[in-house]
Amino acid sequence: MRVNENFRELPENYLFAEIARKVADWEVRHPAERLIRLGIGDVTRPIPCAVKTAMLRAVEEMGDPQRFRGYGSEQGYSFLRETICRKDYLARGISLSEDEIFISDGIKSDCGTILELFGKDNIIAICNPVYPAYLDAAAICGRAGEYNPAAGGWTKLHYLPCVEENGFFPSLPTGRADLVYLCFPNNPTGAAATKDYLAQWVEWANRTDAVLLFDGAYERFIADPALPHSIFEIDDAKTCAIEFRSFSKTAGFTGLRCGYTVIPKALQRCGMSLHGMWKRRLSARSNGVSYIVQRGAEAVYSDEGEKQVQESIDYYMENAAVICRELRKSGFVVYGGKNAPYVWARRGEAMDSWRLFELLLNECGIVTTPGAGFGTQGEGYLRLTAFGDRKATAQALGRLEKLFH
Amino acid sequence: MRVNENFRELPENYLFAEIARKVADWEVRHPAERLIRLGIGDVTRPIPCAVKTAMLRAVEEMGDPQRFRGYGSEQGYSFLRETICRKDYLARGISLSEDEIFISDGIKSDCGTILELFGKDNIIAICNPVYPAYLDAAAICGRAGEYNPAAGGWTKLHYLPCVEENGFFPSLPTGRADLVYLCFPNNPTGAAATKDYLAQWVEWANRTDAVLLFDGAYERFIADPALPHSIFEIDDAKTCAIEFRSFSKTAGFTGLRCGYTVIPKALQRCGMSLHGMWKRRLSARSNGVSYIVQRGAEAVYSDEGEKQVQESIDYYMENAAVICRELRKSGFVVYGGKNAPYVWARRGEAMDSWRLFELLLNECGIVTTPGAGFGTQGEGYLRLTAFGDRKATAQALGRLEKLFH
Repeated sequence: MRVNENFRELPENYLFAEIARKVADWEVRHPAERLIRLGIGDVTRPIPCAVKTAMLRAVEEMGDPQRFRGYGSEQGYSFLRETICRKDYLARGISLSEDEIFISDGIKSDCGTILELFGKDNIIAICNPVYPAYLDAAAICGRAGEYNPAAGGWTKLHYLPCVEENGFFPSLPTGRADLVYLCFPNNPTGAAATKDYLAQWVEWANRTDAVLLFDGAYERFIADPALPHSIFEIDDAKTCAIEFRSFSKTAGFTGLRCGYTVIPKALQRCGMSLHGMWKRRLSARSNGVSYIVQRGAEAVYSDEGEKQVQESIDYYMENAAVICRELRKSGFVVYGGKNAPYVWARRGEAMDSWRLFELLLNECGIVTTPGAGFGTQGEGYLRLTAFGDRKATAQALGRLEKLFH
Repeated sequence: MRVNENFRELPENYLFAEIARKVADWEVRHPAERLIRLGIGDVTRPIPCAVKTAMLRAVEEMGDPQRFRGYGSEQGYSFLRETICRKDYLARGISLSEDEIFISDGIKSDCGTILELFGKDNIIAICNPVYPAYLDAAAICGRAGEYNPAAGGWTKLHYLPCVEENGFFPSLPTGRADLVYLCFPNNPTGAAATKDYLAQWVEWANRTDAVLLFDGAYERFIADPALPHSIFEIDDAKTCAIEFRSFSKTAGFTGLRCGYTVIPKALQRCGMSLHGMWKRRLSARSNGVSYIVQRGAEAVYSDEGEKQVQESIDYYMENAAVICRELRKSGFVVYGGKNAPYVWARRGEAMDSWRLFELLLNECGIVTTPGAGFGTQGEGYLRLTAFGDRKATAQALGRLEKLFH
């Protein structure tokens, strides 16, 4: 009997679990005070009315002997895949067939599970700072090597620094990299990529036989019409990219669980179709996503749904503007918050990000995420999310000025 | 760039996908005829009214700004875990703490994913015949070796024959085995284990440092009060077993997706807590199960829910009795169908199971599952499920007598 020894290398807590623990401690010590949570990035506005109506109807169906549905396709219902093809892709000039879409319970699971399609000796390139779920997934299956904080992190990973000097847009890998996690609009820095920038990655990946794992969770927050929403807006991306999308932040689905993964049929490696492999894997390992939730996701694309989603996005992006303004007033250097729901900020003078986190928690009752939790290059920064309640966000950030002047 | 070469070893189609294809072909050729589906084992009765009511209420909550819920715990909501502890375990004399329960989207995913906790060189023992999802999961991550039908199957697996001679109860492994998949009441044979039988496995596993992966998907179908519903009814199982449960067949959740996995804190291997490892994995890889579905699962345990669930179980088990009776009338040798929703049957004379499958499909319009699809020891058998419509089941099976006399 052997256990998976890679677990011994994992830091004991997942970042957000660690923050939740610190926040719970604070609440015990301050029972009367209310926190404003701009940390984990959970949404606060209810699901759109169109989604609610669709799910109520779906629940009724499941209770009706004539309309009850059992197992659905592991890949997701056709009604949802077809709608996604048409509304998220064809409307932006991208032609996909509906069976290139795989409905999932969210990006967090799929962005890790996707590694099962690839050989163990592949080199994974990962941004620094980065959404920690990619790292942990790579580490659990032994693809990250050993964790050595003194040497800057995981020994087998190829880190791509995302820093002020490059505008938070990582340069192409200098050495070998077989798989590259990219996320735009970016979590945590809020950087939103142009077509020209992504085109460099697509050209590089096709040339070097690499595969891009493109996390597009925040595409709905893009306000600038010149920016691409999908990696597949770039020519030739279909032969080198997999895209992950989510309804979580777009339509309040963090507690409902639905997203999707796009694997083009044109994406082949070592003579194998990655599309075919994923499909085969799903048939053996999954029974798909709840019918009720898929009906809810479909309603996101109805006229009424689109309108309601846009209202929420507008609300959150006004929050982002408030956060940026208040932080700047208090002497922070501020990035993001324009085409992304994340604000990435540091003090003018260098300051430890966990200390900054504690300061905002203890003095202002604001939960943020310390940048160091996203990687060594996040040191000195805080990530704040736009998903809070407007009034509470403004009030809490109003306290910052007093703290720093 | 390397792909996961284990995919090349996988049979091209998952068993039930293969059957679905054959059935679809048949339907194209017989557009006017109606099939009776006793193959994949999908339920046909709607969800209990109590579950419907609970989910309608949960959908309303998600649309209300005051009651909306975002991310839940990766491990599942406490309201559901506490209810499971009390109703499924404490009521049968088993004391578990609620954080030993992990809510999941079903057994099919968890029974494969659980392998991530273990070393790659562990030997997996698996019944023959067996639910094919275990096999495919082991194969995808390279734990099954090579597929060599001439040598009886996967080269690295330790097969445990479940045959008439042992009453479909496999003997303890003679060589090394680190992980053993057991399923009682059994899929596909319908065999239901006694406490004494399971006690042998628990004693063996504790003595040899192995871990039992116990699939209890069908425990609600046990009618005999002397039979155990959980591996944890056996003394000392907490130091050697993981149990998987599902609401799919119990309460019509095949399209809703909810189950749970029990990992006792007492289960340690190589100085590591498997409970702690699973919890850590979930925090990095999952955002839990849909809130709405968890509220539905909770309602399964309400007084009204329990009553409605029992009505469905009774309905299905009367189907099983009809199937057994009709098969026997037509000269089949029949097993199962008493404490399990599966009937396992063969002709008196030896007959190829795929040929038998085609015969029942073409001549009687009955979809079954050929026993050979579950392993070499399933050759000659068919699996029939009790989940069909009563009248259609009786009608279709009535045609058998004519066919075989």
